[in-house]
Amino acid sequence: MSNTIALYPLSNFTFSTKEAQPEEDPSVSARLQRLQNNYEDFGMRRTVEGILVVHDHGHPHILMLQIANAFFKLLSTPHCILFFYVINKGTRIYSPGDYLKPGEDEIEGLKKRLDDRLAPPAESRQFNASHGVDNEWEIGDCLAQWWRPNFETFMYPFIPAHITKPKECKKLFLVQMPERKVLAVPKNMKLLAIPLFELYDNAARYGPQLSAIPHLLSRYNFIYQ
Amino acid sequence: MSNTIALYPLSNFTFSTKEAQPEEDPSVSARLQRLQNNYEDFGMRRTVEGILVVHDHGHPHILMLQIANAFFKLLSTPHCILFFYVINKGTRIYSPGDYLKPGEDEIEGLKKRLDDRLAPPAESRQFNASHGVDNEWEIGDCLAQWWRPNFETFMYPFIPAHITKPKECKKLFLVQMPERKVLAVPKNMKLLAIPLFELYDNAARYGPQLSAIPHLLSRYNFIYQ
Repeated sequence: MSNTIALYPLSNFTFSTKEAQPEEDPSVSARLQRLQNNYEDFGMRRTVEGILVVHDHGHPHILMLQIANAFFKLLSTPHCILFFYVINKGTRIYSPGDYLKPGEDEIEGLKKRLDDRLAPPAESRQFNASHGVDNEWEIGDCLAQWWRPNFETFMYPFIPAHITKPKECKKLFLVQMPERKVLAVPKNMKLLAIPLFELYDNAARYGPQLSAIPHLLSRYNFIYQ
Repeated sequence: MSNTIALYPLSNFTFSTKEAQPEEDPSVSARLQRLQNNYEDFGMRRTVEGILVVHDHGHPHILMLQIANAFFKLLSTPHCILFFYVINKGTRIYSPGDYLKPGEDEIEGLKKRLDDRLAPPAESRQFNASHGVDNEWEIGDCLAQWWRPNFETFMYPFIPAHITKPKECKKLFLVQMPERKVLAVPKNMKLLAIPLFELYDNAARYGPQLSAIPHLLSRYNFIYQ
């Protein structure tokens, strides 16, 4: 029965905006250079991301962030929150999360990064807590691990043969969304709710990692509340 | 730590052959017709398959059966056991398993079908048991569920929207291979050990179900014995 998970409707969640959070690196090459520099100092990068699942009309949807790709500078649409997928050229879609500091616990680290990205500002959180709205994140199973063998963009869901020192390991965790929650989205990002049927078999649009999410979730039996 | 799994080398396993096991249906359309007939009598078909994992030189390999497709009649190669992938036209590759009888327990049913397909004949099993060789199957986690919405060939790793009565649910289970085991392969089949890197991103050759196995296994940490 641990494979049974309650999903709540998208309409149960409240969305607001908060300060913009610019990307740390201005380009892919800068990101890979930082990876290499950090590797020399601290060893393999550990990244954690959350797969936030809700439902809309009885079909699972994944909450993901869309960010304007800094090197394309194409973000000209209003900073609104979308409830469906609108993929613009020059933007990047990802599950919320980031890399951990050396020695940082992965579960606590993921909670902190989900807060950084999606929690309302502190004063709202206090207001929520006093009104019985949950500010906590419930981190579930590890769903997948992706390995980066070199200081390059491609990753694999296994350690490739002959690779003894991978440069990054990214873990995806199921995040069980509570019945209700307030999410605050940085103004330079949009929150998307992407249905499984849209992700499935769609590596062309979403890349190998996001398009595999339907496979990773298929062993769960969802109860639609 | 339940995500840590010991893998044993392919060379630990002993392979022999046994009587041929012809396919139940002579064609895809006959298979779908039987599915429909059974659905009318018993409801949704439940299918179980085992993902048998070993390693070769420290990379995970999946044991799968290759069967000559009866309607192509192309099986002209010697009945040898291959330790690597050789995909012939007109053959079908699948994980061992089959559909369950109405009311049959899925774990016991999977064990029975793995025995039917891969266990040595009864006399060898008695010999094995008296020599301390394990005849049991250790069934692990459910890795995936695939749903067939209609009496047609396509399946999805979720129940498609608006489908209230799926026609088949196929569950894939991790099968933890013991340190040593004797497997007997029907003479009309071959046992293949297919490395994860060959399956990955290769739906063109292996189809959507088998090519997703690397994703399903990525959350496990394998210990190579």
